[in-house]
Amino acid sequence: MEYNLEDTIALLARTPAVLSSLLRDLPEAWTHRNEGEKTWCPFDIVGHLIHGERTDWMARANRILESGETRPFDPFDRLGQQRESQGKTLPQLLDEFARLRTENLAALRTLNLKPADFARRGKHPALGVVTMSELLATWAAHDLTHLHQISRVMAHQYRETVGPWSAYLGVMHCNGHSS
Amino acid sequence: MEYNLEDTIALLARTPAVLSSLLRDLPEAWTHRNEGEKTWCPFDIVGHLIHGERTDWMARANRILESGETRPFDPFDRLGQQRESQGKTLPQLLDEFARLRTENLAALRTLNLKPADFARRGKHPALGVVTMSELLATWAAHDLTHLHQISRVMAHQYRETVGPWSAYLGVMHCNGHSS
Repeated sequence: MEYNLEDTIALLARTPAVLSSLLRDLPEAWTHRNEGEKTWCPFDIVGHLIHGERTDWMARANRILESGETRPFDPFDRLGQQRESQGKTLPQLLDEFARLRTENLAALRTLNLKPADFARRGKHPALGVVTMSELLATWAAHDLTHLHQISRVMAHQYRETVGPWSAYLGVMHCNGHSS
Repeated sequence: MEYNLEDTIALLARTPAVLSSLLRDLPEAWTHRNEGEKTWCPFDIVGHLIHGERTDWMARANRILESGETRPFDPFDRLGQQRESQGKTLPQLLDEFARLRTENLAALRTLNLKPADFARRGKHPALGVVTMSELLATWAAHDLTHLHQISRVMAHQYRETVGPWSAYLGVMHCNGHSS
Protein backbone atom coordinates (compact mmCIF):
# COMPACT_ATOMS: atom_id res chain seq x y z
CA MET A 1 0.00 0.00 0.00
CA GLU A 2 1.25 3.45 -0.90
CA TYR A 3 2.45 5.57 1.99
CA ASN A 4 0.07 8.41 2.86
CA LEU A 5 1.76 11.31 4.66
CA GLU A 6 -1.55 12.98 5.50
CA ASP A 7 -2.66 9.94 7.55
CA THR A 8 0.56 10.18 9.57
CA ILE A 9 0.17 13.91 10.13
CA ALA A 10 -3.50 13.50 11.13
CA LEU A 11 -2.44 11.24 13.98
CA LEU A 12 0.66 13.22 15.00
CA ALA A 13 -1.40 16.42 15.18
CA ARG A 14 -3.88 14.86 17.63
CA THR A 15 -1.57 13.37 20.24
CA PRO A 16 -0.98 16.54 22.31
CA ALA A 17 -4.75 17.03 22.73
CA VAL A 18 -5.21 13.33 23.55
CA LEU A 19 -2.61 13.46 26.32
CA SER A 20 -3.92 16.77 27.60
CA SER A 21 -7.49 15.39 27.76
CA LEU A 22 -6.29 12.32 29.59
CA LEU A 23 -3.66 13.69 31.98
CA ARG A 24 -4.12 17.40 32.68
CA ASP A 25 -5.26 17.96 36.27
CA LEU A 26 -5.77 14.23 36.79
CA PRO A 27 -4.90 13.20 40.39
CA GLU A 28 -1.23 12.29 40.89
CA ALA A 29 -2.39 8.82 41.93
CA TRP A 30 -2.75 8.29 38.17
CA THR A 31 -0.07 10.52 36.67
CA HIS A 32 2.90 10.02 39.00
CA ARG A 33 2.77 6.31 39.77
CA ASN A 34 4.68 3.79 37.70
CA GLU A 35 4.80 0.00 37.38
CA GLY A 36 7.67 -0.49 39.80
CA GLU A 37 11.37 0.24 40.05
CA LYS A 38 12.97 1.61 36.87
CA THR A 39 9.64 1.99 35.07
CA TRP A 40 8.02 5.18 33.86
CA CYS A 41 4.94 7.01 35.10
CA PRO A 42 2.79 9.08 32.69
CA PHE A 43 4.72 12.22 33.73
CA ASP A 44 8.00 10.59 32.66
CA ILE A 45 6.50 9.47 29.37
CA VAL A 46 5.44 13.01 28.43
CA GLY A 47 9.02 14.10 29.12
CA HIS A 48 10.25 11.34 26.81
CA LEU A 49 7.90 12.51 24.05
CA ILE A 50 9.20 16.07 24.45
CA HIS A 51 12.77 14.86 24.13
CA GLY A 52 11.86 13.07 20.90
CA GLU A 53 10.34 16.24 19.47
CA ARG A 54 13.48 18.16 20.34
CA THR A 55 16.18 15.76 19.22
CA ASP A 56 14.86 12.86 17.19
CA TRP A 57 12.19 12.96 14.51
CA MET A 58 12.73 16.10 12.47
CA ALA A 59 16.49 15.98 13.03
CA ARG A 60 16.47 12.54 11.40
CA ALA A 61 14.20 13.60 8.54
CA ASN A 62 16.59 16.45 7.81
CA ARG A 63 19.60 14.10 8.06
CA ILE A 64 18.06 11.84 5.40
CA LEU A 65 17.51 14.79 3.07
CA GLU A 66 20.95 16.26 3.69
CA SER A 67 23.19 13.22 3.95
CA GLY A 68 21.28 10.09 2.91
CA GLU A 69 23.08 6.99 4.10
CA THR A 70 26.47 8.62 4.34
CA ARG A 71 25.99 10.03 7.84
CA PRO A 72 24.06 7.90 10.35
CA PHE A 73 21.47 9.41 12.69
CA ASP A 74 22.68 10.57 16.08
CA PRO A 75 21.69 7.95 18.68
CA PHE A 76 18.57 8.78 20.69
CA ASP A 77 19.14 9.29 24.41
CA ARG A 78 16.32 7.32 26.00
CA LEU A 79 16.97 8.93 29.36
CA GLY A 80 16.94 12.47 27.99
CA GLN A 81 13.50 13.11 29.44
CA GLN A 82 15.00 13.49 32.88
CA ARG A 83 16.54 16.75 31.74
CA GLU A 84 13.31 17.79 29.99
CA SER A 85 11.05 17.26 32.96
CA GLN A 86 13.20 18.34 35.89
CA GLY A 87 11.47 20.99 38.01
CA LYS A 88 8.44 21.14 35.75
CA THR A 89 4.79 20.36 36.35
CA LEU A 90 2.77 18.01 34.17
CA PRO A 91 0.67 20.86 32.70
CA GLN A 92 3.93 22.62 31.74
CA LEU A 93 5.18 19.47 30.02
CA LEU A 94 1.87 19.00 28.18
CA ASP A 95 2.02 22.59 26.93
CA GLU A 96 5.63 22.20 25.86
CA PHE A 97 4.90 18.96 24.01
CA ALA A 98 2.00 20.63 22.18
CA ARG A 99 4.13 23.61 21.19
CA LEU A 100 7.04 21.48 19.94
CA ARG A 101 4.73 19.13 18.01
CA THR A 102 3.04 22.08 16.30
CA GLU A 103 6.43 23.54 15.34
CA ASN A 104 7.70 20.19 14.06
CA LEU A 105 4.62 19.54 11.94
CA ALA A 106 4.98 23.02 10.46
CA ALA A 107 8.63 22.24 9.67
CA LEU A 108 7.60 18.91 8.14
CA ARG A 109 5.09 20.66 5.87
CA THR A 110 7.78 23.13 4.84
CA LEU A 111 9.88 20.22 3.53
CA ASN A 112 7.09 19.71 0.99
CA LEU A 113 7.89 16.01 0.63
CA LYS A 114 6.79 14.29 -2.59
CA PRO A 115 6.10 10.57 -3.05
CA ALA A 116 9.61 10.06 -4.42
CA ASP A 117 11.07 11.44 -1.19
CA PHE A 118 9.37 8.75 0.90
CA ALA A 119 11.81 6.15 -0.46
CA ARG A 120 14.90 8.22 0.34
CA ARG A 121 17.27 6.33 2.56
CA GLY A 122 19.09 7.13 5.75
CA LYS A 123 21.17 5.13 8.18
CA HIS A 124 20.04 4.23 11.67
CA PRO A 125 23.00 3.61 14.04
CA ALA A 126 21.61 0.19 15.09
CA LEU A 127 18.93 -0.79 12.56
CA GLY A 128 20.87 0.07 9.40
CA VAL A 129 19.19 1.38 6.28
CA VAL A 130 15.75 2.93 6.78
CA THR A 131 13.56 5.10 4.58
CA MET A 132 11.87 8.47 5.06
CA SER A 133 8.39 6.89 5.12
CA GLU A 134 9.53 4.36 7.72
CA LEU A 135 10.82 7.22 9.87
CA LEU A 136 7.62 9.24 9.58
CA ALA A 137 5.38 6.22 10.21
CA THR A 138 7.50 5.36 13.25
CA TRP A 139 7.01 8.86 14.62
CA ALA A 140 3.23 8.21 14.68
CA ALA A 141 3.53 4.61 15.88
CA HIS A 142 5.82 5.85 18.66
CA ASP A 143 2.99 8.09 19.88
CA LEU A 144 0.72 5.03 19.90
CA THR A 145 3.27 2.87 21.72
CA HIS A 146 3.37 5.43 24.51
CA LEU A 147 -0.41 5.87 24.62
CA HIS A 148 -0.55 2.08 24.93
CA GLN A 149 2.04 2.28 27.70
CA ILE A 150 0.27 5.11 29.57
CA SER A 151 -3.03 3.21 29.58
CA ARG A 152 -1.21 0.14 30.88
CA VAL A 153 0.67 2.04 33.60
CA MET A 154 -2.54 3.70 34.76
CA ALA A 155 -4.47 0.42 34.77
CA HIS A 156 -1.67 -1.10 36.85
CA GLN A 157 -2.66 1.23 39.72
CA TYR A 158 -6.00 -0.61 39.88
CA ARG A 159 -4.60 -4.13 39.60
CA GLU A 160 -5.73 -5.03 43.13
CA THR A 161 -8.66 -2.62 43.30
CA VAL A 162 -10.63 -4.35 40.54
CA GLY A 163 -10.59 -7.69 42.41
CA PRO A 164 -11.65 -10.73 40.34
CA TRP A 165 -12.42 -8.58 37.27
CA SER A 166 -8.71 -8.41 36.46
CA ALA A 167 -9.23 -11.73 34.64
CA TYR A 168 -11.41 -9.92 32.08
CA LEU A 169 -9.30 -6.79 31.66
CA GLY A 170 -6.83 -7.30 28.85
CA VAL A 171 -4.67 -4.37 29.86
CA MET A 172 -3.86 -6.16 33.15
CA HIS A 173 -2.32 -9.00 31.15
CA CYS A 174 -0.04 -6.86 28.98
CA ASN A 175 3.49 -7.76 29.91
CA GLY A 176 5.02 -4.35 29.42
CA HIS A 177 6.69 -4.50 26.04
CA SER A 178 6.89 -0.69 25.98
CA SER A 179 9.25 0.44 28.69
CA MET B 1 -4.95 1.29 50.28
CA GLU B 2 -8.35 2.89 50.86
CA TYR B 3 -10.56 3.14 47.80
CA ASN B 4 -10.90 6.71 46.50
CA LEU B 5 -14.07 7.28 44.46
CA GLU B 6 -12.93 10.71 43.26
CA ASP B 7 -9.88 9.18 41.53
CA THR B 8 -12.18 6.80 39.66
CA ILE B 9 -14.56 9.57 38.64
CA ALA B 10 -11.68 11.81 37.52
CA LEU B 11 -10.66 9.17 35.01
CA LEU B 12 -14.17 8.19 33.92
CA ALA B 13 -15.03 11.84 33.27
CA ARG B 14 -12.07 12.26 30.91
CA THR B 15 -12.48 9.28 28.60
CA PRO B 16 -15.06 10.80 26.21
CA ALA B 17 -12.77 13.79 25.54
CA VAL B 18 -9.76 11.49 25.13
CA LEU B 19 -11.52 9.40 22.50
CA SER B 20 -12.91 12.47 20.79
CA SER B 21 -9.44 14.08 20.61
CA LEU B 22 -7.99 10.89 19.21
CA LEU B 23 -10.67 9.68 16.80
CA ARG B 24 -12.99 12.48 15.66
CA ASP B 25 -12.41 13.27 11.98
CA LEU B 26 -9.36 11.01 11.87
CA PRO B 27 -9.05 9.26 8.46
CA GLU B 28 -10.93 5.94 8.25
CA ALA B 29 -7.58 4.27 7.55
CA TRP B 30 -7.14 4.60 11.33
CA THR B 31 -10.68 4.38 12.70
CA HIS B 32 -12.27 1.64 10.58
CA ARG B 33 -9.48 -0.91 10.25
CA ASN B 34 -9.10 -3.77 12.68
CA GLU B 35 -6.46 -6.41 13.44
CA GLY B 36 -7.98 -9.10 11.23
CA GLU B 37 -11.06 -11.28 11.10
CA LYS B 38 -13.31 -11.12 14.16
CA THR B 39 -11.37 -8.26 15.72
CA TRP B 40 -12.60 -4.76 16.48
CA CYS B 41 -11.72 -1.45 14.89
CA PRO B 42 -11.83 1.78 16.95
CA PHE B 43 -15.37 2.45 15.64
CA ASP B 44 -16.53 -0.91 17.05
CA ILE B 45 -14.84 -0.22 20.38
CA VAL B 46 -16.68 3.08 20.86
CA GLY B 47 -19.94 1.18 20.22
CA HIS B 48 -18.91 -1.34 22.88
CA LEU B 49 -18.24 1.47 25.37
CA ILE B 50 -21.70 2.94 24.64
CA HIS B 51 -23.31 -0.43 25.27
CA GLY B 52 -21.55 -0.64 28.62
CA GLU B 53 -22.84 2.80 29.61
CA ARG B 54 -26.37 1.79 28.70
CA THR B 55 -26.58 -1.68 30.20
CA ASP B 56 -23.68 -2.50 32.49
CA TRP B 57 -22.02 -0.20 35.00
CA MET B 58 -24.73 1.81 36.69
CA ALA B 59 -27.25 -1.03 36.35
CA ARG B 60 -24.86 -3.21 38.35
CA ALA B 61 -24.17 -0.52 40.96
CA ASN B 62 -27.91 -0.19 41.47
CA ARG B 63 -28.32 -3.97 41.64
CA ILE B 64 -25.75 -4.12 44.46
CA LEU B 65 -27.60 -1.42 46.41
CA GLU B 66 -31.03 -2.96 45.82
CA SER B 67 -30.39 -6.69 46.02
CA GLY B 68 -26.87 -7.33 47.32
CA GLU B 69 -25.84 -10.90 46.57
CA THR B 70 -29.38 -12.23 46.32
CA ARG B 71 -29.87 -11.32 42.66
CA PRO B 72 -26.87 -11.71 40.31
CA PHE B 73 -26.03 -9.07 37.68
CA ASP B 74 -27.53 -9.55 34.24
CA PRO B 75 -24.83 -10.95 31.93
CA PHE B 76 -23.15 -8.36 29.68
CA ASP B 77 -23.73 -8.82 25.96
CA ARG B 78 -20.27 -8.35 24.48
CA LEU B 79 -21.70 -8.07 20.99
CA GLY B 80 -24.30 -5.48 21.93
CA GLN B 81 -22.30 -2.74 20.26
CA GLN B 82 -23.45 -3.94 16.86
CA ARG B 83 -26.93 -2.66 17.70
CA GLU B 84 -25.51 0.55 19.15
CA SER B 85 -23.42 1.47 16.15
CA GLN B 86 -25.54 0.33 13.22
CA GLY B 87 -26.13 3.14 10.74
CA LYS B 88 -24.23 5.67 12.81
CA THR B 89 -21.11 7.69 12.12
CA LEU B 90 -18.14 7.77 14.45
CA PRO B 91 -18.79 11.42 15.48
CA GLN B 92 -22.36 10.40 16.39
CA LEU B 93 -21.05 7.53 18.52
CA LEU B 94 -18.51 9.79 20.24
CA ASP B 95 -21.26 12.29 21.07
CA GLU B 96 -23.53 9.54 22.36
CA PHE B 97 -20.79 8.06 24.52
CA ALA B 98 -20.06 11.50 26.01
CA ARG B 99 -23.73 12.14 26.76
CA LEU B 100 -24.28 8.73 28.38
CA ARG B 101 -21.10 8.98 30.45
CA THR B 102 -22.12 12.42 31.74
CA GLU B 103 -25.55 11.10 32.69
CA ASN B 104 -24.10 8.04 34.39
CA LEU B 105 -21.60 10.05 36.43
CA ALA B 106 -24.41 12.36 37.51
CA ALA B 107 -26.43 9.29 38.57
CA LEU B 108 -23.40 7.92 40.42
CA ARG B 109 -23.02 11.19 42.34
CA THR B 110 -26.71 11.07 43.22
CA LEU B 111 -26.15 7.73 44.94
CA ASN B 112 -23.96 9.66 47.40
CA LEU B 113 -21.90 6.58 48.24
CA LYS B 114 -20.07 6.56 51.57
CA PRO B 115 -16.92 4.56 52.39
CA ALA B 116 -19.08 1.84 54.01
CA ASP B 117 -20.92 1.38 50.71
CA PHE B 118 -17.70 0.50 48.86
CA ALA B 119 -17.61 -2.87 50.63
CA ARG B 120 -21.21 -3.76 49.76
CA ARG B 121 -21.37 -7.01 47.88
CA GLY B 122 -23.06 -8.14 44.72
CA LYS B 123 -22.97 -11.28 42.64
CA HIS B 124 -21.38 -11.50 39.22
CA PRO B 125 -22.86 -14.32 37.09
CA ALA B 126 -19.41 -15.80 36.37
CA LEU B 127 -16.96 -14.25 38.86
CA GLY B 128 -19.09 -14.69 42.00
CA VAL B 129 -19.01 -12.21 44.85
CA VAL B 130 -17.69 -8.75 44.01
CA THR B 131 -17.83 -5.42 45.84
CA MET B 132 -19.04 -1.96 44.90
CA SER B 133 -15.49 -0.56 44.84
CA GLU B 134 -14.34 -3.42 42.59
CA LEU B 135 -17.20 -2.63 40.20
CA LEU B 136 -16.42 1.10 40.09
CA ALA B 137 -12.66 0.55 39.70
CA THR B 138 -13.38 -1.92 36.90
CA TRP B 139 -15.48 0.68 35.10
CA ALA B 140 -12.38 2.94 34.93
CA ALA B 141 -9.94 0.11 34.16
CA HIS B 142 -12.29 -1.00 31.38
CA ASP B 143 -11.87 2.43 29.77
CA LEU B 144 -8.09 1.95 30.00
CA THR B 145 -8.24 -1.56 28.56
CA HIS B 146 -10.00 -0.19 25.52
CA LEU B 147 -7.69 2.81 25.17
CA HIS B 148 -4.86 0.27 25.28
CA GLN B 149 -6.66 -1.77 22.63
CA ILE B 150 -7.39 1.23 20.38
CA SER B 151 -3.73 2.30 20.42
CA ARG B 152 -2.71 -1.27 19.57
CA VAL B 153 -5.26 -1.62 16.74
CA MET B 154 -4.16 1.70 15.25
CA ALA B 155 -0.47 0.83 15.52
CA HIS B 156 -1.21 -2.47 13.77
CA GLN B 157 -2.08 -0.49 10.62
CA TYR B 158 1.58 0.61 10.50
CA ARG B 159 3.11 -2.78 11.26
CA GLU B 160 4.72 -2.99 7.81
CA THR B 161 5.05 0.74 7.21
CA VAL B 162 7.53 1.29 10.05
CA GLY B 163 9.97 -1.24 8.58
CA PRO B 164 12.78 -2.34 10.93
CA TRP B 165 11.63 0.05 13.68
CA SER B 166 8.89 -2.41 14.66
CA ALA B 167 11.54 -4.11 16.81
CA TYR B 168 11.65 -1.01 19.04
CA LEU B 169 7.90 -0.32 19.20
CA GLY B 170 6.41 -2.12 22.18
CA VAL B 171 2.86 -1.79 20.94
CA MET B 172 3.74 -3.96 17.93
CA HIS B 173 4.61 -6.79 20.31
CA CYS B 174 1.40 -6.71 22.33
CA ASN B 175 -0.38 -9.96 21.69
CA GLY B 176 -3.91 -8.66 21.85
CA HIS B 177 -5.14 -9.58 25.29
CA SER B 178 -8.00 -7.11 24.93
CA SER B 179 -10.29 -8.29 22.19
